[in-house]
Amino acid sequence: MSVDAWSSLKRRMEELAELQGVLATLSWDQETQMPPKGAAARAAQTGRLARLRHERFTDPDVGRWLAEIAALPTKSPDQEAALRNIGRDYRKATKVPADLVAALSEGAAHGFQAWLAARKANDFEVFRESLEHLVSLRRQICEVIDPNAHPYELLLQEFDPGTSVVELRQLFARLTGGLRELIEAIDGVEPLPSFGDRFPVQGQREAFRRVAEAMGYDLTAGRIDISEHPFTTSLGPGDTRITIRVFEDDLLGGLGPTVHEAGHALYEQGLPWDKVGSSVGQAAGMGLHESQSRLWENFIGRSAPFMRWFGNEMESVFAGRSVDADALFRAANRVAPTLTRVEADEVTYNLHVGIRFELELALLEGTLEVRDLPAAWNDSYEKVLGIRPPDDLTGVLQDVHWSHGMFGYFPSYTLGNLYAASMGATLEEHIPTLWQDVERGDFGNVLSWLREHVHSRGHVHDAPRLVADAVGERDHVEDLLSYLWSRHGLLHGVTRPLS
Amino acid sequence: MSVDAWSSLKRRMEELAELQGVLATLSWDQETQMPPKGAAARAAQTGRLARLRHERFTDPDVGRWLAEIAALPTKSPDQEAALRNIGRDYRKATKVPADLVAALSEGAAHGFQAWLAARKANDFEVFRESLEHLVSLRRQICEVIDPNAHPYELLLQEFDPGTSVVELRQLFARLTGGLRELIEAIDGVEPLPSFGDRFPVQGQREAFRRVAEAMGYDLTAGRIDISEHPFTTSLGPGDTRITIRVFEDDLLGGLGPTVHEAGHALYEQGLPWDKVGSSVGQAAGMGLHESQSRLWENFIGRSAPFMRWFGNEMESVFAGRSVDADALFRAANRVAPTLTRVEADEVTYNLHVGIRFELELALLEGTLEVRDLPAAWNDSYEKVLGIRPPDDLTGVLQDVHWSHGMFGYFPSYTLGNLYAASMGATLEEHIPTLWQDVERGDFGNVLSWLREHVHSRGHVHDAPRLVADAVGERDHVEDLLSYLWSRHGLLHGVTRPLS
Repeated sequence: MSVDAWSSLKRRMEELAELQGVLATLSWDQETQMPPKGAAARAAQTGRLARLRHERFTDPDVGRWLAEIAALPTKSPDQEAALRNIGRDYRKATKVPADLVAALSEGAAHGFQAWLAARKANDFEVFRESLEHLVSLRRQICEVIDPNAHPYELLLQEFDPGTSVVELRQLFARLTGGLRELIEAIDGVEPLPSFGDRFPVQGQREAFRRVAEAMGYDLTAGRIDISEHPFTTSLGPGDTRITIRVFEDDLLGGLGPTVHEAGHALYEQGLPWDKVGSSVGQAAGMGLHESQSRLWENFIGRSAPFMRWFGNEMESVFAGRSVDADALFRAANRVAPTLTRVEADEVTYNLHVGIRFELELALLEGTLEVRDLPAAWNDSYEKVLGIRPPDDLTGVLQDVHWSHGMFGYFPSYTLGNLYAASMGATLEEHIPTLWQDVERGDFGNVLSWLREHVHSRGHVHDAPRLVADAVGERDHVEDLLSYLWSRHGLLHGVTRPLS
Repeated sequence: MSVDAWSSLKRRMEELAELQGVLATLSWDQETQMPPKGAAARAAQTGRLARLRHERFTDPDVGRWLAEIAALPTKSPDQEAALRNIGRDYRKATKVPADLVAALSEGAAHGFQAWLAARKANDFEVFRESLEHLVSLRRQICEVIDPNAHPYELLLQEFDPGTSVVELRQLFARLTGGLRELIEAIDGVEPLPSFGDRFPVQGQREAFRRVAEAMGYDLTAGRIDISEHPFTTSLGPGDTRITIRVFEDDLLGGLGPTVHEAGHALYEQGLPWDKVGSSVGQAAGMGLHESQSRLWENFIGRSAPFMRWFGNEMESVFAGRSVDADALFRAANRVAPTLTRVEADEVTYNLHVGIRFELELALLEGTLEVRDLPAAWNDSYEKVLGIRPPDDLTGVLQDVHWSHGMFGYFPSYTLGNLYAASMGATLEEHIPTLWQDVERGDFGNVLSWLREHVHSRGHVHDAPRLVADAVGERDHVEDLLSYLWSRHGLLHGVTRPLS
């Protein structure tokens, strides 16, 4: 009987994964290929499949199978993972009434339009009512899921199961303090020069393809296209695609996102896809996913050895031109507070995230009203980064997330940086030839370690446990601060004060 | 109650059309974008959605709604169309047992592989058993649908509802006789020269895009990509895509398929998409669809005025080069019997189709055994076209259709040419400035006529009635022969004997 429940559950989850792959295909096509007039039909197709997927998931059979598996006297690790991962999602999906789901979906569609209009008008007021509605809906949804839980705790479960609000508060408090110390030290010295050499885009695309392939991205199971906002998506096992962007006058502005997305793609390509049915064949949260992109983008991809290798590749693609790898390295590691998160360097980046985390918490707890959000935003920037946005466009209206009703995602970015720092430190300990390998464009040892300790484990545990298994019991905040001081302190001629 | 049935039926058909659009998206992506390792997952996704679509269509509710609408004392034209179109498909879909559907699907997958292997070995024997199995399955399926009907009649309903085996036999008999008369006349004169000028592919793509746009193809509701076998597909309303091919040394080999596919796409873009739910918002058969591609490809696209306009476009794209429009016109209208259908000129083309029609009929009737097929094929070519294939590869193994278990499609090609001939004659009568317009690249009058008389009518009637409404009661065979004699007779200096 329980064997039946287990195989029935896995079959259903495989079906849902197939539908998810179809939805990913529709979405990838929409972002990269679809002609404008196809939009309405695509929305209807997507809505239809999403509803179907929801129905098949919230089917009472799924609950019955989960209960039968839970009652087993002994369970395999995959069964434990399924009970935790699928059970968590199932309880949430079945508790939220359909009209609340529909209201959120509709509110998000309107919210996005209102956000676009508000950006056009450079006026938060145009977006205010929509955002109030979305915050209220999110709070209601959290209330029906579990009235006793902190609402932000429930949001975190969607993106980073296994991480608590209390832990995040502590992480951000320590990290913010440490980062401000580094930023203040750097603030006193001459900023690093930027890199302005121009390269034709076709050659850059070829160079970026070489980078992704050298990292280990399997192009017979993927492809690289151009889009305004780079992203990675899996359309199914054996089909993980990335998009990049290329600018003639901004080589680093194309390189960084390429390495970042290829990092995401390596994680996806390394997942145990044969375990999709038990939920083990999926990523263990968005923070861990971001750790894979950030480790490659920053720890590897902004290092001096990497830039020396990349400079050689560029010289090979653009035969006859000389490329100054040291200038690339220095420009890739410029540090300066900015108003815009997506343009931030890796030192100030997490302060942007910390600000959003605090504001989201206050909105969800009800201690901050949406109407007071722009002022709170600006005050935070002034306090934390020392700069005050002159208007809403460069301030509270810069991120798209809230307009989609998406709250609780931002911490994933910082969790990613934290996990990546501990993984980077571990890689340096375990691979004595690490930087010589990187300088030769040989990333095989890095990828092997990630495949063994991260990718192949899928979602057998939530990210905190999985990372601890991989790197041991390390202090991620200390690892990140130590890494940032060593790279950026050195470059700027400042050293960390003894504490 | 019956109002409910009507709107319920339309809603269900809209749902099925949405799923069809999703399947078309998966298929387009597979043909043009998907990396090789994505194949297995894509097959699973496609199979899952196809099964779902079949279940939703064969739902007994659909039969109940159809019965209620059939019982209405008066019916709208859309309701008449729905009863005819949907009813026909529903009866067939519900009569065929699931295991027979699965056997055919599996047999087709194996058949395609066996066909590939047979082509590689240039040996029909490698394919024979698979083809025997497929013919047997098709005959069984026809038997369960209607044991009293001619099996080929049932196959025709899938592609060209409204056309009967008896009519086709008569059409092919008259057409074959008339065509052989023309071919024999041409056979005595010097063949026209071919066109070998080379043009870089990028410029050709630009020229082909201009051709498609000039014809009226809306690129904000479509796109043009490259694939080995050109095709047209609608991913939903507002999203009809074509693929083309481009060869540096074969300008006409790229131009013809471009005009052909753009002709298909214009039909799709002009369908009454708001009537998808009643089945009126779809093409009225594959023969009519082919008429739209053939009318543009041959009647318009191989004409001297068209070539003069196209020559100017080429000269504008390839600034400074001169393009000999007369040489293009003459090369595009070379006539010579070939062994391969897809390489045939428009005069001999229908003889290839007639041969296949006779062989398919005999296979389905059981008067020809699969083991005797290669000899029968070769005999037919010798008798009808005067040339005998030296091997299976250039003979019976050339078409993919049968390997997919697809029988009964070939006549659509000739029906398309026949309908197109009568439409061409009608256009010449109704648009006095037709050829001056074409020479200026102004295709607006042609498209308007097609939109009004063909595209916008969708599937309100089956093709024969719809074509009769558009062109009057014309003799399609005579129209086609007359058109071919006037264009190709003139070019080769031969005149039609008085009958």
